[in-house]
Amino acid sequence: MLKLDSDQWNLIYNVFSFGLVSMLACTVYTLVSQQRVLAKYRSALVMSSMVTFIAAYHYMRIFDSFKESSTDMSVNVSGEQGAFNEAYRYVDWLLTVPLLLVEVVAVLALTKSVSTSLITRLVPASAVMIALGYPGEIASDQNTQVMYGVLSTIPFLYILYILFVELTKSLANQPEGVAATVGRLRLLLIATWGVYPISYILGMGEGPTAEQFVGVQVGYTIADVLAKCVFGLTIYKIARMKSAAEGMKE
Amino acid sequence: MLKLDSDQWNLIYNVFSFGLVSMLACTVYTLVSQQRVLAKYRSALVMSSMVTFIAAYHYMRIFDSFKESSTDMSVNVSGEQGAFNEAYRYVDWLLTVPLLLVEVVAVLALTKSVSTSLITRLVPASAVMIALGYPGEIASDQNTQVMYGVLSTIPFLYILYILFVELTKSLANQPEGVAATVGRLRLLLIATWGVYPISYILGMGEGPTAEQFVGVQVGYTIADVLAKCVFGLTIYKIARMKSAAEGMKE
Repeated sequence: MLKLDSDQWNLIYNVFSFGLVSMLACTVYTLVSQQRVLAKYRSALVMSSMVTFIAAYHYMRIFDSFKESSTDMSVNVSGEQGAFNEAYRYVDWLLTVPLLLVEVVAVLALTKSVSTSLITRLVPASAVMIALGYPGEIASDQNTQVMYGVLSTIPFLYILYILFVELTKSLANQPEGVAATVGRLRLLLIATWGVYPISYILGMGEGPTAEQFVGVQVGYTIADVLAKCVFGLTIYKIARMKSAAEGMKE
Repeated sequence: MLKLDSDQWNLIYNVFSFGLVSMLACTVYTLVSQQRVLAKYRSALVMSSMVTFIAAYHYMRIFDSFKESSTDMSVNVSGEQGAFNEAYRYVDWLLTVPLLLVEVVAVLALTKSVSTSLITRLVPASAVMIALGYPGEIASDQNTQVMYGVLSTIPFLYILYILFVELTKSLANQPEGVAATVGRLRLLLIATWGVYPISYILGMGEGPTAEQFVGVQVGYTIADVLAKCVFGLTIYKIARMKSAAEGMKE
């Protein structure tokens, strides 16, 4: 059992609730806004809805898991039945991170062959990245944690290479203003994805302390809201700009 | 534990339920009415839907929290696990108040540069206003409560300045009847936002009495219904008037 004080316990509780409602609201927002972009950009928007929908489900589970695994603000982190289930996050990421990357490619509406080439490299790389992070997350000795952290960084660097080197070649054909927004989108992605390894490193060591646990949970939740909601709204903005540039009238 | 009599306990219980269903009904109403305004006003309407959607989520949580934290009409307000969670309101406001202000700007359909300029000042100011209120709300000594109350008033006055001085400059270009409705909207906003500081002041002192607790909960709920539902319906009315003035046929 991990004893939290009431400020720590309430912070986590309310941050989870904040994550949950942000994901729900974003899902509805991107679903009802589909008619406001050209048909070819709607798949990007639907993917964003699915990302936040899947995340909303997981935050509902995480919120309940936190409440049910806590007794008088002591959290059961034993990994046994009834313990706080950290694996929800990894199941979530395994589904949403590949989708997020497909979403980026979809909103650019590149030629079929370029899209396919990017997606067939980004999706497996991101799945490998998440799968390699999990054994480190649940390990309690530092060597294992460092090893999987480093292994997981390899596909991460490969994804960055694709996004910064390969994707850049396609930006020349984008309408005015879009190249700049895609640049910002990419920076947002790096900046938010950067919070995940920080949270991972925060949690390293034998069994978490209360401070570590708070840091990891708050860090991951903020990163998720940025990487899914704010990212999805930026995708929507790009789709709107491109639709307007291509003559869509309201 | 805070002992309420049965009238007090039932009043709060039913007011929370009233708040919840008002938010739900408003969300559905503004979502299904989108086609009745011109496309350029739909983003204001969608934002209003998101505001009431987020509020509906929080009223569901607040309602459940009140029920679960009460035993034989004594409410646990200790701040520990299982206590009534006042923080839901602040998480709600942190998300909805900036959105409400964006909604006001969106329904005016000003030029891009004017909108951006208003939003980049209103949104951070409102977030700071809410964030500064919370430490005062959970404090139990009066000096801290007064200090955060005063600090939170500074961004509030700044928002009023923007709405009354800066926004007024744009009203000259609005169609007949709209300037008057915007004026009413602004008054509604001031009048309802005025209930929040009154509720805040009502709750001041060391640990609330039963009367204070009732006053705060009923006050905040009424203010929320006015500031989100009635406000959203007024936004819808403005969008309808502007759509008609711009030649939309039914």
